[in-house]
This record gives sequence, structure tokens and C-alpha cells, in this order.
Amino acid sequence: MKRYVGVDIGGTDIKFGIFTETGQIMDKWHVSTDIRGQGKNLWNQIIMEICVHTENGKDVKGIGVGVPGPVQKDGFVEVCVNLGIGNFNPKEILGRIFPKTTIAVGNDANVAALGEMWQGSGQGYENLVVVTLGTGVGSGVIIDGKIVYGAKGMSGEIGHMMVNPDETDLCTCGGRGCLDQMASATGIVRYTKSLLVQKCASTRLNHQEPLTARIIFDAARAGDRLAAQGVEHCLSFLGKSLAFVSYVIDPDIFVIGGGVSRAGDYLIEIVQKYYNQYSVLKKEKARIVLASLGNDAGIYGAARMVMEEKRGKNENISGSL
Amino acid sequence: MKRYVGVDIGGTDIKFGIFTETGQIMDKWHVSTDIRGQGKNLWNQIIMEICVHTENGKDVKGIGVGVPGPVQKDGFVEVCVNLGIGNFNPKEILGRIFPKTTIAVGNDANVAALGEMWQGSGQGYENLVVVTLGTGVGSGVIIDGKIVYGAKGMSGEIGHMMVNPDETDLCTCGGRGCLDQMASATGIVRYTKSLLVQKCASTRLNHQEPLTARIIFDAARAGDRLAAQGVEHCLSFLGKSLAFVSYVIDPDIFVIGGGVSRAGDYLIEIVQKYYNQYSVLKKEKARIVLASLGNDAGIYGAARMVMEEKRGKNENISGSL
Repeated sequence: MKRYVGVDIGGTDIKFGIFTETGQIMDKWHVSTDIRGQGKNLWNQIIMEICVHTENGKDVKGIGVGVPGPVQKDGFVEVCVNLGIGNFNPKEILGRIFPKTTIAVGNDANVAALGEMWQGSGQGYENLVVVTLGTGVGSGVIIDGKIVYGAKGMSGEIGHMMVNPDETDLCTCGGRGCLDQMASATGIVRYTKSLLVQKCASTRLNHQEPLTARIIFDAARAGDRLAAQGVEHCLSFLGKSLAFVSYVIDPDIFVIGGGVSRAGDYLIEIVQKYYNQYSVLKKEKARIVLASLGNDAGIYGAARMVMEEKRGKNENISGSL
Repeated sequence: MKRYVGVDIGGTDIKFGIFTETGQIMDKWHVSTDIRGQGKNLWNQIIMEICVHTENGKDVKGIGVGVPGPVQKDGFVEVCVNLGIGNFNPKEILGRIFPKTTIAVGNDANVAALGEMWQGSGQGYENLVVVTLGTGVGSGVIIDGKIVYGAKGMSGEIGHMMVNPDETDLCTCGGRGCLDQMASATGIVRYTKSLLVQKCASTRLNHQEPLTARIIFDAARAGDRLAAQGVEHCLSFLGKSLAFVSYVIDPDIFVIGGGVSRAGDYLIEIVQKYYNQYSVLKKEKARIVLASLGNDAGIYGAARMVMEEKRGKNENISGSL
């Protein structure tokens, strides 16, 4: 039976999924990412895992790989900042081991977006943006059902829109006032801590160490005023940024995933409120919804990506995509 | 000889161009827009002009029409705010008169973008944004050589990104702080007038009535400090907005057209400076250049659009696009 492998390379884990042509998941698993040897170990891990789980690639028609960095059109990856590796092309590396198998490579945020479109909250839409709120703010942009890569593979970097002119700290990118500094898990904790220092207010967040985004959201939902103030201020920048995105490409829907999105409808309502406020011209507002595939979005999207690549080449694949 | 007609409907003029399959312009002309009769006169004008200039549509294989409003996928136009007309579908109206001719319809900013990509400053690029600085700020977004329409035909409305939190006046959209209020011709005049009132400075702009964007740019270039300050402040918001656009779709190039762009390299240098400042993450910055087709971008783009529509339908057309 023909099958497709989706691989999602993350800083902590490498996730794997095996899918049928029609999108059923047959198997999924993960291993800890081994970044020693400037990436060499990582590729050995990936090759071995695929071989062990598929009888050396038997019936595997395609392998899709999501990597945490910008990907050039030919599959080359110059750098994955968070992994500290770079200068590799998964198409070549995996192509040498699986010469009869189509290999596709994409940026992890883009690939996750494709997954949500295919089997998650974005089903039925062809114009969508999937935003991942984790240690940073990433996004994948899909137009007419296709991932937008951009000229240098740098589309969807909305985390570095400089939307907060009052910011005084530097962002990791070297700028100041990036969305990333406000709406990521790190950003929400950082800003709320600054409120704690300023306000000396009575709040259940005092003496919470380590303070996490989850604790802040839980307190906010339970009615803690300082926590709610922190969350609302941080998410107002996300709503504003999504309005900016909307004025550029006018998507049908925004899908919000990543760890921070576990805050659920409480988060969505605030983001939608500010999105509406900053997108006055649009009579019909884009919907903002929660992602539904969780950590599996990447493996779904990677598998879907390679199926699309095969279809683009007119290789034999059922028309069920 | 097969030919294509490009029509660009504007508030003042309707422009027409006749093109060969390979993009040579054979004829161009314009008439004053007649918006009486809720648009009825306008369509009679267009039909008559095409008939007179093409022997009733002889050898015309396609007619492309750019309209100043959002266009739905089937060609329907709900409203053209500036013309005060709406609820029409040029495909139906022109299709009744020219039943054997392919008709394509697009938003004027998108169509102008296609023109610049085809025969103007965007030649050789497939990912570009063409920004028109006139009474408002419009833009057309092209990805992989294709116009991005967006879910509701509302892509490229970057003029309504709310980028100036210090703004107190209302924008025409009902919002406050839109790019349109700063970087359009109207916005530059408005802001510079406010500086004149505040500063009581010695400037050659005093007693210039009516004050226009052109006069302000001329003074700025000639060393007038207040004029230069006004221009730089206004254009800083354009640079910032283009950086936001870049973080969404990462185009190769921005092409700046419209009346205000006559300020030339002086304008480009300021916009590029602020664009670079707000796009810190990007090592290779997108280039910002002047448009080159001027007022003809719309007719070129409209013709190109209908050629593409024919090609999409696999109708007989040479492969020279």
C-alpha cells in the first residue's frame, strides 16, 4: 500500500507520521533531536527511523520534511538558528538513501499551516494564515491552497513586525518592539513581570516562580486583574498585526496554534476584538479560530506537501487531495 | 492580427490600449469618465470606444478591465466608492456585446501591478508589490506571477494599516492612524500644514495656496527644512508599512507609482531608509524602485490579465507571456 512519511524537525523532538494517500494516519512517533556533529547525527536519526518503521522505505512514495528555518526553492537550508545547524539540502541527503522516493522540504511554520488546512481547523479554506504562539511567534501563509514561500523563503515572519513603539528592550532579531516580544509565551511572561514590578498590586501572580504564560492565562481567566491586564495588552498587538496581515492578503481565516493557544477561547476573543478594531475598512472580518491538530500539524503538513509536489510533477497519485 | 484591449476605469478618465499578443502597444487613448445614470453611461462609453477603435471588435481576442473597487472571483463588483457606482459585472455587460471575446476583470491597483510586472519596473520578478501613492495609498500584490485577490477581493489595502498611533483625525475608512492619512498626497499636505501651524518657522511653504504634495517635495529637495521634515515623517510610515508587508509575503521588490512618486529618487531613498530600519530580521532587503509605466500601467496590466485568463483556459495563445 502506497504511503507517505511526514517528518517535523523541532528543537526538542523530531516527529514522524506515516500517512495513506487519502490522509489516514497509519503510525506516528517521535525521537529526541540530536544536534551533535553539526547536523550529521540528526540526518542519521531521520534515515534510521524511516528505515526501521517502513522496512527500508518499502512502498514509501514520498517523504516530506519540515525544518525550523527558511527553505530555498531547491530545498537548500542555509541556517536553522534555533538548532545551530545549516548548509544542508534534505532533498539531496534523503535522495541518496531513497532514490526512488520524492522528497519535499518546507519551513516548519508553513508546513504546519498546510497540515491545518488539510486535516485541521483550516479545512475548506484556501486562503489562510496559521499563527504559532510558542517561544516565538511564527506563521505560515497559504494563498489559493499553496504555501507562500516569498523571495528568500522569509514569508510569514510576522513575529518581527515592529508593532510596539513603546518597547525599550531589544528583540532577538536586533530590532525593538517586535510582535514576538509581546505575544509569544516569553513575551507575555516578560511583560506581565514588568507589570508586577510597576504596580505592587494584589495579585495571585506574586511569588509564582517560575512564572509561565500558562499560569498567567489561568489567573486571568479566574479574574486576576493584573494577569488579565497583561494578557490583554500583549494580545492587542497580535490582533493589530493580524489586521495588518489581512490588509496585505485578505485571508478567509486565521488559525492560532502553538503552546500559548491552549488558553483557548479566552485568547481568541481578545485577539478577535483587537483584530476587528484595527481592520475598520473590512465589513466582513476574517474569523480567528484555534488550531486543532496540536503538535501533529507538522507531520500532516509535511506529508501533504510531498503529495502536492508529486501532483505538481504529474506523478501517479489519486485525485483525493 | 489578434489583439487585446486593456481598459482602465478611473475617476477622471477611462484609458484604453490595444496590444498585440506579444505585448506591443498598437493604440492608446482616453475619454472622460461619465458616471451619470448609475454607471449606464460609462458602459455605453466603453462599448462604443472599443467598437469604434476595433471595427466592432474585429480580431479582438480579449478585453481586460481594471475597476477602482474590489472585484469578486466571478467578476462582480459590489461598489466603486470613488465613482459612486456598483452592482455590476463587466463580464456580463461586455460579454453580451462581444460574445466570442474573453473578458477579464480586476481591481485597478492589482491590474497596474500586473502591468508593471509585465512591461515595467517589475520585469523579471514574480513576487512584487506595486504601491500607488495618489489621493490614497493603494497596492497590488503579486505572488508567483499571479495577482493575489484575497478572500473578499480585499488584498493590497495597505493604505488602511493603522500605523500611526498618534493620529487624532479620522480616516475616510472610519479608523484613525491609517497609512493613507500620512503617505498619500492628501496626507502629506495635511501633515505639512499642521507643521506650518505648529512651528511658525521660516519656510518657503508659507503663503503657498493651494499647497500641494508636489510643492512640498520640491521645497524639501531644495533644502527647505520644514518641508523636508514633513516629507520624512510621512514617508517613514510608508517604509514601516512596507516592512510589515515584507514580513508577511517577502516580495523581491516594491514598485512605487502614482502621482506622488514623481518625487523620484528623493522619495525612494527615504522610504528605503525606513523600510530597512523596520525590517531588521531580513539580511537581504527587498529593493524599492520607481514605477516606469506611469498612467499606462493599468491598460498594460488589463491586457495582460485577459491574456492570462485565456491561457488559464488553455485557449489558443502564443507562449510569449
